[in-house]
Amino acid sequence: MKFHYKCTVEYDGSSYDGWQKQHNTVNTIQCIIENTLTDYLDEHISIRGSGRTDKGVHAYNQVFDFFTAASIDTAVFIKAVNSTLPDTIRIKDIALVPRNFHSRKSARSKTYDYLIDMGQIPTAFNRRYHYVPDVLPSIELMQQAAVQLCTTMDFSAFTSEKRPNYNYVRTIYSIGFIMKDNILTIRYTGNGFLYNMVRILTGTLIDIGTNKIPLDDLPHIISCQKRELAGFTAPSNALFLKEVLY
Amino acid sequence: MKFHYKCTVEYDGSSYDGWQKQHNTVNTIQCIIENTLTDYLDEHISIRGSGRTDKGVHAYNQVFDFFTAASIDTAVFIKAVNSTLPDTIRIKDIALVPRNFHSRKSARSKTYDYLIDMGQIPTAFNRRYHYVPDVLPSIELMQQAAVQLCTTMDFSAFTSEKRPNYNYVRTIYSIGFIMKDNILTIRYTGNGFLYNMVRILTGTLIDIGTNKIPLDDLPHIISCQKRELAGFTAPSNALFLKEVLY
Repeated sequence: MKFHYKCTVEYDGSSYDGWQKQHNTVNTIQCIIENTLTDYLDEHISIRGSGRTDKGVHAYNQVFDFFTAASIDTAVFIKAVNSTLPDTIRIKDIALVPRNFHSRKSARSKTYDYLIDMGQIPTAFNRRYHYVPDVLPSIELMQQAAVQLCTTMDFSAFTSEKRPNYNYVRTIYSIGFIMKDNILTIRYTGNGFLYNMVRILTGTLIDIGTNKIPLDDLPHIISCQKRELAGFTAPSNALFLKEVLY
Repeated sequence: MKFHYKCTVEYDGSSYDGWQKQHNTVNTIQCIIENTLTDYLDEHISIRGSGRTDKGVHAYNQVFDFFTAASIDTAVFIKAVNSTLPDTIRIKDIALVPRNFHSRKSARSKTYDYLIDMGQIPTAFNRRYHYVPDVLPSIELMQQAAVQLCTTMDFSAFTSEKRPNYNYVRTIYSIGFIMKDNILTIRYTGNGFLYNMVRILTGTLIDIGTNKIPLDDLPHIISCQKRELAGFTAPSNALFLKEVLY
């Protein structure tokens, strides 16, 4: 295994069972890419993603790396592999990386986008990529809540997976609110995110924005570290892994 | 039937059998809207669209009109009707119009958009709204062809429906080429379009852009008025009725 490569891949997660290889399904993005690369390079290939994305979550720039005996011609590789992959999974780039590069461990920051249709009349288009709230949340209230979340702290309240002796401290660098054509993008950038964290943060912001959870309760929710005090888990179909920086 | 209303409607045509009411399917947009309005207003409602859209074609602003005995409260109507319609059909506006208004006959101009993915690597997203060509057409060549089509003339070569004693003369005011994030929008504005005309014009532009049809053949294709000389019928899924002006 002489060569070590890093790939960037875009996918529409709508019809897949998430990123991560699993025992009970072969319809995961990791599995489909590994099988395609194994066929193409004619050797067993294992890939390491920058992190799991849940079933239904999309990615503009997911990153994975793999080792191979083959020296790869970028243009030829991208064309050949994309012609075999389903058209909702597209390899966008491949580059040689140092031996010690690790898609997950080497990542310095990750950015996720969550898309909410804020129109009085939600659009008929792109329903598979948007969350359509029953009641429109106040952006003002969500922003006031977001300010309290942009920090380094224990995010136990905002994950659905609890493991013993695990470090739940993460840093969120920014939470941006971008409105365009009635679609609100909530953009989270942080050094890493716990399981379901972006979806639970988004559900909590929406619940605060609709006064289902009082804004004043947020410090208590954070300090109690109890998942059940935070908001709902926002649906996966409106979540996009936007970028991983190294 | 005291009141005459004009409605603007947006729809994702992916899962419908086109706009027009037909004998062999109830899954047309006209049929679904008529049934919804008939139920809501509790009287038989017939609607007149600005024109047919083919199976799979989308609309940002299709227009239809109808007569009713009921005086309608705009906000209440839009909310109630949209809550019954499928979420891929959205009534956006309703307004009173004069008795002699006719969605099709009163239209002064129509604008259609056709979306082509021009990326070296086509995007994994929005596949249902884009045409993805095997070979990328030259925009330069397509523009040179488009110039010859922006005029008042007989468009017989660019329709798949021939009727005796029918006037095939139409005026195209403009054909614009807008590139954004690798997606090329070809925007057609004209005083009216024949059956399949935008799709055949687009197929012809693409065939010229890929040198399948020489640019120099276009005057001959136009003057011969034979459908078989023009290009292919571009798929319906990438076509959007953008606007109807009165």
